[in-house]
Amino acid sequence: MCELLGLCANEPADIRFSFSGLKQRGGKTGIHKDGWGISLYEGKASRTFHDPESSATSEMAHFFQSTPIKSKIIISHIRQANRGRVCLENTHPFSRELWGCDWVFAHNGQLTGIKKTPLQFYRPIGTTDSEYAFCYMMDKIRGEFPRRPNSKKKLWSFIESTAREINQFGVFSFLLSDSRFMYAYCSNKMCWVTRQYPFGEARLVDTGEVIDFSTKLSKDEVVTVIASSALTDNEHWQCMEKGEFRVFNNGRSNRLS
Amino acid sequence: MCELLGLCANEPADIRFSFSGLKQRGGKTGIHKDGWGISLYEGKASRTFHDPESSATSEMAHFFQSTPIKSKIIISHIRQANRGRVCLENTHPFSRELWGCDWVFAHNGQLTGIKKTPLQFYRPIGTTDSEYAFCYMMDKIRGEFPRRPNSKKKLWSFIESTAREINQFGVFSFLLSDSRFMYAYCSNKMCWVTRQYPFGEARLVDTGEVIDFSTKLSKDEVVTVIASSALTDNEHWQCMEKGEFRVFNNGRSNRLS
Repeated sequence: MCELLGLCANEPADIRFSFSGLKQRGGKTGIHKDGWGISLYEGKASRTFHDPESSATSEMAHFFQSTPIKSKIIISHIRQANRGRVCLENTHPFSRELWGCDWVFAHNGQLTGIKKTPLQFYRPIGTTDSEYAFCYMMDKIRGEFPRRPNSKKKLWSFIESTAREINQFGVFSFLLSDSRFMYAYCSNKMCWVTRQYPFGEARLVDTGEVIDFSTKLSKDEVVTVIASSALTDNEHWQCMEKGEFRVFNNGRSNRLS
Repeated sequence: MCELLGLCANEPADIRFSFSGLKQRGGKTGIHKDGWGISLYEGKASRTFHDPESSATSEMAHFFQSTPIKSKIIISHIRQANRGRVCLENTHPFSRELWGCDWVFAHNGQLTGIKKTPLQFYRPIGTTDSEYAFCYMMDKIRGEFPRRPNSKKKLWSFIESTAREINQFGVFSFLLSDSRFMYAYCSNKMCWVTRQYPFGEARLVDTGEVIDFSTKLSKDEVVTVIASSALTDNEHWQCMEKGEFRVFNNGRSNRLS
């Protein structure tokens, strides 16, 4: 299994506090040592850092930790390989273009038999079941909506039903973004916390590091962090149920089902 | 106009010496201060660093300079914006997936009217004529070859003829890779140098830095560097002619036309 981390905010936000907790799980406090990646949107494009090295010791993770790159939508993943060898091709997040937007995807779980489903437009570059499932999902969305639909609810519902379909193959917890919205599907475990005024202190489970968000965020900022398991031990993380699908938009959560 | 830098080698090679010359042109010895990017292949996937900052002062360029990431195919670009604002979406290299391979593209030139040509499968994320031309080219290749053709010569010829077609719109010097081959088209200026045994010294035009490749490369290594203008002043760079198309493969050059 792997660990997911996502951020959705109404203003470009800094994920380094959360990431400094997550990256420990890539070889130090956790066993997810088979690569890591992070995608940060700027407009319709995303900037991705991929590294097949362990995040706890990766030089690139160290660089990322020392450089503030803010974004309204961020998806990160640390990997414990079970399907597909450890290499760049198999390192999440994966991305593809649709409607002139980068779509970014990271997955936690295993999907048995997904590779027998036919693909049409998108092909996997690596050998993971995760990237295959992403291509399958992108094919479905492209087939249903050759252009971005005016009704966002129609799009959200379609993504949810596709997630449920793919979930039949096994465990399909994922974070996905189309550059506007962040989609989260919980197959087994996923939780989230929204930070908004008045801000308090947060303490990382993995390092004990403490941050006082009241000195970091302005009154109008709303930041939601989504993770496979809680990253802090003194905030109220909301656990998603199995089979729950949520859309995050401008830092806030919307439950559809 | 912009500046291009490419590397094609028979073994994973280090581009930092060449890049340290190029990056000076992004704001110091040159005027190409509107962002930079570099893509390095590992197998069929590529790892890309994008930064809308000037390469001469970019922290990410500094990190890249301090970290050895070797690759057999590398494409880099520093930008002087003329079409499309300075932002991540408009920062080269651009990439798209075809046949389960990352294709990476960077362009030097301007193409007037290219945006009136119809697109089918691939859509630009940013607003540059460069990315539009890349999408147009990828559409053509995909239309002609739904699968990678067995005959590489057929593919090479088709890419060459598509390059000539797009060149009608203006200046279309580019570097392109499909993860196996590096394609270079010279619309105005482009040159290349092949380093092979016996190796000698090279001195960067932009910094005066000297490297002795006999201490860096092993006897069997063959490394070709391609650039908009010569990066060293004591090696024999071969100038491409206007309208010349070349394919580089395992460090060596093939001229088709």
